[in-house]
Amino acid sequence: MKLWQKKTGSKKEVENFTIGRDPEFDLILAPFDVLGSMAHAIMLEKIGLLSSEDLRVLLKGLKEIYFEIEKGQFKIEKGVEDVHSQIEFLLTQRYGEVGKKLHSGRSRNDQVLVDLKLYYRAAIRELVEASQELFEVLIELSEKHKNNLMPGYTHTQLAMPSSFGLWFGSFAEGLTEDLALLEAAYRLSNKNPLGSAAGYGSSFPLNRTMTTELLGFDDLHHNVINAQNSRGKTEKTLAFALSGISGTLNKLAADVCIFMNQHFAFISFPDDLTTGSSIMPHKKNPDVFELIRAKTNQIQGIPNTVTLLLTNMTTGYHRDLQLLKEAIFPGLDSLLDCLKMTTFMLKEIKIKENILSDSFYKHVFSVEVVNQLVLEGMPFRDAYKKVGLDIDSDIFSPDQSHVNHVHEGSIGNLCNKEISDKMKKVIDSFKFQKIEKSLNALLDINP
Amino acid sequence: MKLWQKKTGSKKEVENFTIGRDPEFDLILAPFDVLGSMAHAIMLEKIGLLSSEDLRVLLKGLKEIYFEIEKGQFKIEKGVEDVHSQIEFLLTQRYGEVGKKLHSGRSRNDQVLVDLKLYYRAAIRELVEASQELFEVLIELSEKHKNNLMPGYTHTQLAMPSSFGLWFGSFAEGLTEDLALLEAAYRLSNKNPLGSAAGYGSSFPLNRTMTTELLGFDDLHHNVINAQNSRGKTEKTLAFALSGISGTLNKLAADVCIFMNQHFAFISFPDDLTTGSSIMPHKKNPDVFELIRAKTNQIQGIPNTVTLLLTNMTTGYHRDLQLLKEAIFPGLDSLLDCLKMTTFMLKEIKIKENILSDSFYKHVFSVEVVNQLVLEGMPFRDAYKKVGLDIDSDIFSPDQSHVNHVHEGSIGNLCNKEISDKMKKVIDSFKFQKIEKSLNALLDINP
Amino acid sequence: MKLWQKKTGSKKEVENFTIGRDPEFDLILAPFDVLGSMAHAIMLEKIGLLSSEDLRVLLKGLKEIYFEIEKGQFKIEKGVEDVHSQIEFLLTQRYGEVGKKLHSGRSRNDQVLVDLKLYYRAAIRELVEASQELFEVLIELSEKHKNNLMPGYTHTQLAMPSSFGLWFGSFAEGLTEDLALLEAAYRLSNKNPLGSAAGYGSSFPLNRTMTTELLGFDDLHHNVINAQNSRGKTEKTLAFALSGISGTLNKLAADVCIFMNQHFAFISFPDDLTTGSSIMPHKKNPDVFELIRAKTNQIQGIPNTVTLLLTNMTTGYHRDLQLLKEAIFPGLDSLLDCLKMTTFMLKEIKIKENILSDSFYKHVFSVEVVNQLVLEGMPFRDAYKKVGLDIDSDIFSPDQSHVNHVHEGSIGNLCNKEISDKMKKVIDSFKFQKIEKSLNALLDINP
Amino acid sequence: MKLWQKKTGSKKEVENFTIGRDPEFDLILAPFDVLGSMAHAIMLEKIGLLSSEDLRVLLKGLKEIYFEIEKGQFKIEKGVEDVHSQIEFLLTQRYGEVGKKLHSGRSRNDQVLVDLKLYYRAAIRELVEASQELFEVLIELSEKHKNNLMPGYTHTQLAMPSSFGLWFGSFAEGLTEDLALLEAAYRLSNKNPLGSAAGYGSSFPLNRTMTTELLGFDDLHHNVINAQNSRGKTEKTLAFALSGISGTLNKLAADVCIFMNQHFAFISFPDDLTTGSSIMPHKKNPDVFELIRAKTNQIQGIPNTVTLLLTNMTTGYHRDLQLLKEAIFPGLDSLLDCLKMTTFMLKEIKIKENILSDSFYKHVFSVEVVNQLVLEGMPFRDAYKKVGLDIDSDIFSPDQSHVNHVHEGSIGNLCNKEISDKMKKVIDSFKFQKIEKSLNALLDINP
Repeated sequence: MKLWQKKTGSKKEVENFTIGRDPEFDLILAPFDVLGSMAHAIMLEKIGLLSSEDLRVLLKGLKEIYFEIEKGQFKIEKGVEDVHSQIEFLLTQRYGEVGKKLHSGRSRNDQVLVDLKLYYRAAIRELVEASQELFEVLIELSEKHKNNLMPGYTHTQLAMPSSFGLWFGSFAEGLTEDLALLEAAYRLSNKNPLGSAAGYGSSFPLNRTMTTELLGFDDLHHNVINAQNSRGKTEKTLAFALSGISGTLNKLAADVCIFMNQHFAFISFPDDLTTGSSIMPHKKNPDVFELIRAKTNQIQGIPNTVTLLLTNMTTGYHRDLQLLKEAIFPGLDSLLDCLKMTTFMLKEIKIKENILSDSFYKHVFSVEVVNQLVLEGMPFRDAYKKVGLDIDSDIFSPDQSHVNHVHEGSIGNLCNKEISDKMKKVIDSFKFQKIEKSLNALLDINP
Repeated sequence: MKLWQKKTGSKKEVENFTIGRDPEFDLILAPFDVLGSMAHAIMLEKIGLLSSEDLRVLLKGLKEIYFEIEKGQFKIEKGVEDVHSQIEFLLTQRYGEVGKKLHSGRSRNDQVLVDLKLYYRAAIRELVEASQELFEVLIELSEKHKNNLMPGYTHTQLAMPSSFGLWFGSFAEGLTEDLALLEAAYRLSNKNPLGSAAGYGSSFPLNRTMTTELLGFDDLHHNVINAQNSRGKTEKTLAFALSGISGTLNKLAADVCIFMNQHFAFISFPDDLTTGSSIMPHKKNPDVFELIRAKTNQIQGIPNTVTLLLTNMTTGYHRDLQLLKEAIFPGLDSLLDCLKMTTFMLKEIKIKENILSDSFYKHVFSVEVVNQLVLEGMPFRDAYKKVGLDIDSDIFSPDQSHVNHVHEGSIGNLCNKEISDKMKKVIDSFKFQKIEKSLNALLDINP
Repeated sequence: MKLWQKKTGSKKEVENFTIGRDPEFDLILAPFDVLGSMAHAIMLEKIGLLSSEDLRVLLKGLKEIYFEIEKGQFKIEKGVEDVHSQIEFLLTQRYGEVGKKLHSGRSRNDQVLVDLKLYYRAAIRELVEASQELFEVLIELSEKHKNNLMPGYTHTQLAMPSSFGLWFGSFAEGLTEDLALLEAAYRLSNKNPLGSAAGYGSSFPLNRTMTTELLGFDDLHHNVINAQNSRGKTEKTLAFALSGISGTLNKLAADVCIFMNQHFAFISFPDDLTTGSSIMPHKKNPDVFELIRAKTNQIQGIPNTVTLLLTNMTTGYHRDLQLLKEAIFPGLDSLLDCLKMTTFMLKEIKIKENILSDSFYKHVFSVEVVNQLVLEGMPFRDAYKKVGLDIDSDIFSPDQSHVNHVHEGSIGNLCNKEISDKMKKVIDSFKFQKIEKSLNALLDINP
Repeated sequence: MKLWQKKTGSKKEVENFTIGRDPEFDLILAPFDVLGSMAHAIMLEKIGLLSSEDLRVLLKGLKEIYFEIEKGQFKIEKGVEDVHSQIEFLLTQRYGEVGKKLHSGRSRNDQVLVDLKLYYRAAIRELVEASQELFEVLIELSEKHKNNLMPGYTHTQLAMPSSFGLWFGSFAEGLTEDLALLEAAYRLSNKNPLGSAAGYGSSFPLNRTMTTELLGFDDLHHNVINAQNSRGKTEKTLAFALSGISGTLNKLAADVCIFMNQHFAFISFPDDLTTGSSIMPHKKNPDVFELIRAKTNQIQGIPNTVTLLLTNMTTGYHRDLQLLKEAIFPGLDSLLDCLKMTTFMLKEIKIKENILSDSFYKHVFSVEVVNQLVLEGMPFRDAYKKVGLDIDSDIFSPDQSHVNHVHEGSIGNLCNKEISDKMKKVIDSFKFQKIEKSLNALLDINP
């Protein structure tokens, strides 16, 4: 039985086809659906569409359901179309007619939109916290290994001296920039769509500012068509942000896979973090990082999948939008896994020492010598030529014991303090505490 | 003859293949390359790598070239590898040995990176200004037509009353959100990479904070590997932002194409803004909006093209990155064209009036009647059923003359003032004036 | 316990992360894994690596497992790494040491590759059969409605007379072309990779031609590195083919959604095949076709997801390839669903008659009149101008009762016979019977 | 002045925006447009729409233009809309009224479609020929180096013995498979759309079978709507085929970049085929292969760009389709360049010899030893364990001088003859000679 059903139902084939993976996703949305309904009910009472007794009963019922969800006791019963219907039916079953009054002034369109926004806010918070943990491990490793030199490559060719401190630190700073993109996605998730109904607003005198505050939103999508158009745009922007962080993890994983190769052998992991082969008894494979590389590629494909679902679509809700959940929900989980697994693995990484003292790497020091000649007064282009000729004549013999880089962000001056400050600043910009406070306050309301 | 060439050159086939579209793109980068060199030179003098006389001559020479570029007198001569070489050769040709000293402490890697960042900042500013113009036309149209009702669709089916005011306004608010994403891309473009050299820093005691200030950057990429990794990440983030705005224009264009269809006939344009057919004398085709729809699809493909160039790449410069320019430069131009053309066309749009008074549209008012019954005391689900049965029995006869929506963002309360405030706020966040001031100051330095 | 494990296992975190969705997918591969093992065992006996008694026991055991799988009695036990291990363990548990001899001369790399190829062949067959059913419905509808005119659109503008016969027939012929692409993918799936081991072949004197014949493959990947590289290439080509068919279904669905719109109202479906709204009692939404449109967009995103997993990857197996299954397996199912659902719905489609007799459509006949003038001797460009002026002066009044198109593929000469011949030809080219015969023969071998 | 123009023109802004890159692409299409017009004219005379004198004059005029195009003397004059108009205007200017009769029974839609199909056929031929040249170099290198062992990698970890013969040969066989996909695209290009007019056929009694034969097409798109829908589908399928070949080149390039790295140093190229650095005098960078890697990534992005242009589009021409040319034309050129450049470079490749005799590689031989134990009677799983323990105890000491692989496609039995046969077979399937003959015959007609 469906909310919108008058007499007869859809054919079973149609139902099976249209329901898709929604039962699975609806369980994720359930707690947020309750929160949205609580705010909606409070607002309806304020504008006179519910009596205060109605509101008291509804809030009681909704809170009951909220805690049932938290305890894992909630499920969508067979034959019930979706989470919204299940909650409405539970309320009606338990408290009678009042349950039927809750849907006034909203449509499933803005109801699911608000659920999604609340869910995305929560999921983003988890991503930020996991990023922060990884960041801290990276900074720690960068500091710990700041004196361990390694070669730097350009064109996958030996280029110049680098260090493990620099290498780890690069991903740390990269994360601060990725989180800035996530923060942009967060701002879009943090706008209230409730009250836009089916995308064209309502003839009820809704108070959208009130639900915005109750749910801890920073702002509302004012224009109701634009609120509806945020379905899809929010997911697309979120997909961009997932892709951003994924790009950084992907590069880290690509580096790890090559640095674990026996020709490099710059890093290693304990045996129980690698995997073997069914026919080659000597293998210790970096499967975890290969899968991080691959999973971050999957995630980097999500923006395009989302775009394909949205493009050339006219204004107004289309059922196509349902599939956005299949694109974005698993992506959120997968990126969280990748962040946590990268952190888990890096805590165990082992570093090879004294790599650059081998004469195999002497050409890596060519720029150091060129620059020294310049500091001694030779014009750059001439010094460059001299060192080139020395190399060709095989008389090039640099000091390979250390480098002296002092400028901001260089081997000798990593600026991890400045980078940590950036991280703190971007994390503060999310203002998660404010939201937590709002939602706790909402759950505490006893009319 | 190339900068890095010792004795012999590459084969002609190799040169032709590797140069690609760079000569075309290098001309775009030329003025920014000069600005970057000016800041670099000033810094080199400060740290003692140039004499003050050297600096005087170099700044004089660079300014000359800058103004030659502005006048269209600059070109990359046959046989010169790129814009960086051309400028260095001009300096050396005109002022002798001092030209050879300029490249100390930098590589072409950080040189081109700084050029790109400066160019992106300028290109983003143009996009913001074009978006603002479009925004103003949209708000104007929204206000002008706020009393013109039209049907709203869901599932491409007639749904509820909407208005032209609401429709135009939705794209206006959409743009404010798109610019927030562009602002995130801008922040990444507005970080100084100079001093990272080939991605591993330099043994010269560079002062990167100084060049950051001279070029009006908000911040620097501290970690030098991360600075190099921003090549690609900057373009990817920028591509996301282009895709964001494109999504909004794409939906507007899709709407226009369908609303111009004769079955709808809600809007029209003067004949000289439409095109005809080679065999059908009656045609007036919406080619401009079809091409905006298509071009915004091309642009929405750019994030993926950029991702394909970057993914699975290890740390450090790879020549692959050169092709990022082919992905992003035309995209910046194309989106600017689309914004301007949309603005140009919308200024001429004509609107059909009194659409909803036709009885064809009566079902569109069903929710209005349901809600009225609710306001009179009937529970929502019961009112919904009653109206449904009235429609089935064909006795549904609503008032089609007006609607009474009052809440925030609804037909009767568009909140265009609030939306305009958002626009102002996001544009202010770019702080373009600060950058303009810095670059003007740089050009004014007379040592 | 894992096949490749010597002493200790991987950490639980590593296991959870690396296993992913494989347990789900491995069940799909199970019957094919048994078939591959049967062929491998027969070949091993032939080259002297198994005794004939070993072979007898292994075939008996494998057939037992095959029929357990068919009856749904097979499962991968807790702690067993994958389907390959489960089958090997069952054999060893039931028949002792002989189970351990089966893996000689192969690696899990070529084992899973052969499983995948066999599965893809079977899945493609299902797609072809579902396409054929849809094709037949389309041809039937085309014939049934060949005299029902409708307008044809270009630029979404009324253009020329078309017919339902032509419209349905266009998708039928489209499918014949899509299947040609699927046939190309099939050819790649129909090549034997077995014997390539971990991608570098084996020091055993394997007889790869023999397993090729036993498994009904058309050919083998000769070069063993190329055999391994077919992992990924096969999926990519298959993804292309899925995208091809999806493009046709997507266009059909897009047409249906617009033709069901009330302004067009050209087609309709019984109420129980449409869905309603939670707030608008009048709605009958085309959700099924919206979801077909969206699902075919998801599928059209798969080639890109696959490409992202593969690109910039060096020769040789990488664990990344595991995720190809997540991209392609659900896509195969989803396209099959879409094909079946389109067929299911089209069987119920209702067509509006006499559309073009309404004067609303008179301009659609302009080319008919132009051509008539040409046939009467006026040069084309002059006739075009005359009709254009008649339209502008509103004196254009064509015969709207019928059109007279006679050439190949036109309204009056649909060529559905020729199109059906093409379908037959492309389906024959798959030679499914040959494969069925081979696999049945394999299952019948009693050594 | 435009063909479809009655009185006044479009605004200049509209013209500039809509014309895009067409002038550049139209020159590519010019010779094919003439050939299509010749076939169309011959057919029109046959069905009585042209006199035989008209035909004589038209063929004379068209052939003149064809040879002017071949000599580079043709251009699209300022103010003329496109190549079709330019040719029609030239004919009218030179031969009077007869020029105006040529457009009877066709639209620009089917005219440009036939031009595109003819162009794609020609471009595909070039790709096939370039692939064949590369194939031959690969087979030659494979044979030359069949006794040069190298390590094979899985998970980027040392795995088993491989050989240069195997490695080169893998790409050769890969190309045979890629061409099979290109052949599928070719079949779609090789269908005649002429006579479909604007996508809904014509009231003239056209003879489409006749133009099919005259232009050497294998078949026609029968259904005229489907013929129009082949615009886009043809490009998409072609993009898939370009992506297929690109995948193979991309992997080859990725291998080359890593094998040129100093840690591997398996291959090298003469200095004048590598490039240097502006600051590091020791660098010899593999820029050509990095760019091949990147360009093949660009190309692998084209299917998605094409899909974005097409998806959710209803039946019938949309101006959006114009941009397909921007996606596919440069892709055809770029892939041709990549094929030729790969061939050019591989002709100069130098191979390191005796790689595997270094004890660094001894573990690579572990499977050889396991298999030897199996051949001596030990069950596989037991042999695997023994060798694993030997490796752990560091007493593993295999024969590293040679391997003995004999099965089909292995190091000792490359099957390059069989692979060459596959190549011959797939190239023959294109039947280029048949088309060449048809087009020559068309140019020779003298009525």
